[in-house]
Amino acid sequence: MTESRFTRDTAVEAVGAGRYRGEVVEGWSVSPVGSVPNGGYLLAMAARAMRDPTPHPDPVTITAHFLAPPRPGAVDIDVEVVRSGRRHSTVRGELHQDGRPMVALLGAFGDLSAAEGPTRQDRRPVELPPVEECEAWADEAQRRAEAAGEAPPGFALRFDRRTPPGMMGWSQGRPVGRGRMGGWIRWPDGPMDGLGLLAVADAYPPAVFNSGEGELGWVPTLELTVQVRKRPARGWLASMFTTDSVTAGYLEEDGEVWDAEGDLVALSRQLALAARPAH
Amino acid sequence: MTESRFTRDTAVEAVGAGRYRGEVVEGWSVSPVGSVPNGGYLLAMAARAMRDPTPHPDPVTITAHFLAPPRPGAVDIDVEVVRSGRRHSTVRGELHQDGRPMVALLGAFGDLSAAEGPTRQDRRPVELPPVEECEAWADEAQRRAEAAGEAPPGFALRFDRRTPPGMMGWSQGRPVGRGRMGGWIRWPDGPMDGLGLLAVADAYPPAVFNSGEGELGWVPTLELTVQVRKRPARGWLASMFTTDSVTAGYLEEDGEVWDAEGDLVALSRQLALAARPAH
Repeated sequence: MTESRFTRDTAVEAVGAGRYRGEVVEGWSVSPVGSVPNGGYLLAMAARAMRDPTPHPDPVTITAHFLAPPRPGAVDIDVEVVRSGRRHSTVRGELHQDGRPMVALLGAFGDLSAAEGPTRQDRRPVELPPVEECEAWADEAQRRAEAAGEAPPGFALRFDRRTPPGMMGWSQGRPVGRGRMGGWIRWPDGPMDGLGLLAVADAYPPAVFNSGEGELGWVPTLELTVQVRKRPARGWLASMFTTDSVTAGYLEEDGEVWDAEGDLVALSRQLALAARPAH
Repeated sequence: MTESRFTRDTAVEAVGAGRYRGEVVEGWSVSPVGSVPNGGYLLAMAARAMRDPTPHPDPVTITAHFLAPPRPGAVDIDVEVVRSGRRHSTVRGELHQDGRPMVALLGAFGDLSAAEGPTRQDRRPVELPPVEECEAWADEAQRRAEAAGEAPPGFALRFDRRTPPGMMGWSQGRPVGRGRMGGWIRWPDGPMDGLGLLAVADAYPPAVFNSGEGELGWVPTLELTVQVRKRPARGWLASMFTTDSVTAGYLEEDGEVWDAEGDLVALSRQLALAARPAH
């Protein structure tokens, strides 16, 4: 089995006591104001470093505070195990570049394959139209152009995303009127694991763009927390992200991700800032 | 204006560079397995220390990981400002006792009185029966007994809580059948501020007790994140906490708190563990 691009691009290596080095790769940048690496991508890379000194592979809950965007290139991730228990390890992380902190993290890691306890689902799964009725964001022409070096690497190509008809209408001035965003999602080139879900939790444009709240500028994430519940089954994931409360520019975005077996695999919540664009 | 008991009992003093000392007071303990200080109380005390070196009084988002319960008595809180910006300060905290870490924290603080940006509410406020139709948890006889030293200080007396009829039926074997818990809440003796909301976010028994999932033992919180949106207006707060997804023992509890002006003042989410009781 070949490694997915996500796995390659979030690789880290130990370079000293409690320090890991990773490479922020250009193709994971979004471009709202210059080129900014996607937050979920940075979170996944840091989580890979943070779990390394523990016997616990799965981030059962991990929080990232985004302080400043690193440039593409080398970053260091400092890792400190705060508590090492039988069932969970609690770990602090800090991703920095040129000595400047960029992402501060705190997470608990466990082993979901060994989790035991009651299971009860009162939540209704995310409902989406069939994949074949949804819209792909990146078509084959784009993929060929990037592969041939004829186009810059694009964030849209990192995921295979299919959105329900109308979900992207906000980009042509037709928001759906509620803060909802999401669709089917998977890697284009390999299976999804628990770390991949951290990137899935930040893979869509802000849900608030669909609220009809009028023109908003850049919506930077202050903090993102993801709970991973299950390593996903093979196949498409169904995801939905919701913003219901915007308070003087502060907004939450709550996400749910379900797998092909109909199980909830992740819950996410972020705090972001919405601002009117400067003119 | 006299200080509320909450303000007194969460007081901290600087005792060195980046170190604060607080006193965990007996009356904030819950007693599921021995006497364990309430998590929201510890979070609020730590947040008071964490905001001290910043110009930002309000915890706009703060995350606590609960590692081990301190005993009543002195605790130290180590505080490190990771980034100090114009609008937000990002701060790490660690509450420890006898050199052992008990709570690890990461938060962003701001000044909500200066927040500017769009406001939009698509969430329906928590609906509760009128206060006078709800049930008080602590009556005057209890209060008098504690004040006279005739009864041990009780967590139930720290808050003035009024729950809708039936909400506490789980304790007599009549759960409502969904993971819901909440009601009206305020301090018995003073106004509520942003730090108080951190305690409100953890002031009720686990919502999962109302799910009808059968007998559950102790439901320890692994992690609690609270977003504070507004300093609450004077008066009763309406709160509701919800657990919809229990996965092999892992469960979320999502909270909303609204103030007497009808504004959302806090959103919370915790990750907790449910286990069958050992017999």
